Amino acid sequence: MVTFDENKILSNGEYIYKQRAEIERIADCVCEKGFENLLFTSSGGSLAMMQPFDYMISAMSGMEVCSQVAGDLLLTGNNRLTEKTLVFMASKSGDTKETVEAARYVKERGAVIVSVLGVEDSPLGELSTYSVVFKNGRPQELVLLLLIGRILYRKGFFDDYMQFADELGNLPAALVSVGKASDLKAREYALKYKDAPYQIWIGSGNLWGPVYSFAMCVLEESLWMRTKSVSSPEFFHGTIELMEKGVCVALAMTEGPTRPLDERVKKFILKYGEQVTVFDTADYQLPGISDRFRWMLSPVVINAVLSRISKNLEEMKAHSLEIRRYYRRVDY
Amino acid sequence: MVTFDENKILSNGEYIYKQRAEIERIADCVCEKGFENLLFTSSGGSLAMMQPFDYMISAMSGMEVCSQVAGDLLLTGNNRLTEKTLVFMASKSGDTKETVEAARYVKERGAVIVSVLGVEDSPLGELSTYSVVFKNGRPQELVLLLLIGRILYRKGFFDDYMQFADELGNLPAALVSVGKASDLKAREYALKYKDAPYQIWIGSGNLWGPVYSFAMCVLEESLWMRTKSVSSPEFFHGTIELMEKGVCVALAMTEGPTRPLDERVKKFILKYGEQVTVFDTADYQLPGISDRFRWMLSPVVINAVLSRISKNLEEMKAHSLEIRRYYRRVDY
Repeated sequence: MVTFDENKILSNGEYIYKQRAEIERIADCVCEKGFENLLFTSSGGSLAMMQPFDYMISAMSGMEVCSQVAGDLLLTGNNRLTEKTLVFMASKSGDTKETVEAARYVKERGAVIVSVLGVEDSPLGELSTYSVVFKNGRPQELVLLLLIGRILYRKGFFDDYMQFADELGNLPAALVSVGKASDLKAREYALKYKDAPYQIWIGSGNLWGPVYSFAMCVLEESLWMRTKSVSSPEFFHGTIELMEKGVCVALAMTEGPTRPLDERVKKFILKYGEQVTVFDTADYQLPGISDRFRWMLSPVVINAVLSRISKNLEEMKAHSLEIRRYYRRVDY
Repeated sequence: MVTFDENKILSNGEYIYKQRAEIERIADCVCEKGFENLLFTSSGGSLAMMQPFDYMISAMSGMEVCSQVAGDLLLTGNNRLTEKTLVFMASKSGDTKETVEAARYVKERGAVIVSVLGVEDSPLGELSTYSVVFKNGRPQELVLLLLIGRILYRKGFFDDYMQFADELGNLPAALVSVGKASDLKAREYALKYKDAPYQIWIGSGNLWGPVYSFAMCVLEESLWMRTKSVSSPEFFHGTIELMEKGVCVALAMTEGPTRPLDERVKKFILKYGEQVTVFDTADYQLPGISDRFRWMLSPVVINAVLSRISKNLEEMKAHSLEIRRYYRRVDY
């Protein structure tokens, strides 16, 4: 397996999991202070990483929640943002321009900011009421699984959170297992489509963020490959007509509530497509994770699978995932 | 000009505008009954057509509003939907499967449904509390400009609505003028890119719906052309790296609050791209429309421009916009 360091995945997971008590303390603090609604805001992949948590809150509770791109927030405002709003932000670098400006905007309005950051001492960290620094810790989502899970628990929407959080200690090893189990399929995908002129990626529900992000932040940004991402229900309202020989189509299937939407796509693309690949989170064992929690982990499971595609593409195309032509290289 | 019947555009506009009193009556009724939040739900192009109105409410008022794809609503539910929710739905055929099911779902929960329909006696119409039938009337958005405008007025967020609504009587003629003024540019675009293997379309704010819809429901669904649509702020977080010779990139610029996001994209793509086209709603005169109302009309203005692209592509590619391979032709 190329670029797969099992011990590093385990220690990266442990790095976050050992902050569990602190993350839960933050959740408890924001619940004790109280809030009227929730807002996820950031940019690009960092906001997409949080999409499954907006989804999780919507699916599990009656709380008002929304997501908004930082640039949009700055120009349009957010008509539900008050000092009673609880805001979640994320940035690996901690200095993404619009995200930092959005934090300033939000802070001026008196809202509490909880941020998930890749580095210490960042501009976003300084503006945040609370922050969790994951450094080399992965997956970043583990921070939010604990944070949002605990908030839902405190609000009465997630009774067995404590067991869920205990089992999350097994997540890093489970993701190692997913990586190993999916590598062959991912490698075949990479081999077959490394020179594809165009790919369609489809997903739904809590996999919409991961699919959107993989298409935009990995295939486009890191590998300079042209893609279209579309959600499973929307696929049938336009993109469907592109199905023909020679079109590379990939579907990521969730174990969450929208799975039937994915199943409908699967049936269609297998019938009418030729270059079709289905990556189903249900295909992978997650040792130490109870079945009833699996759907919430579909995003991190699919990311472990998609990561095998990108690592294999990186090797086969001899194109480092770190090279950029423009992003943070030129002014704009 | 190909496929451009000035008199038909005028009479199609008049068909809707003459329903103004009835549309305003509906707005008054739902306001008198009262509501706690608003939800736009439907599928594909019909939901995308309503996106500017979700945006308009968010930008002009403090009311809680969200949009959700009908298929998602059916499987995930909507945690803010109650009998106090005011729901807007749209369907040209009035029988789009998931949309009709979503209407049933919403109705069972006691919410008021206002629908915008292309035909009389449809399943969606039957499930709706109120409906407006536009038949051959165009643009469909005119129904919602009056409906949402009047609701905002009644709620105290749009003081000069009455003047706005009066001026909307000039909209059909203004759109004829936009069609004529944009045809040359649109035709050049069509000629240059009719065989493009791939197009990137970018837009923001109240033009996100139109751009998403043009890419998916026109270029993909009607013309079988591969596209990627991305919002102006998100373009910089991934898709930017695809900028190179030979990539067709088009930007639709709004006159709404997010215009600076479009300006940033414009500057970048003109500097680094080669096959770049900017369609700016500000370039077109709108006789009889006050400047302060123009931003709300950017969606219908851009659609008038984009329509010139699709009509010219239809002719040049000898590919009728009405042909489908799968949509409503095969079961799925």
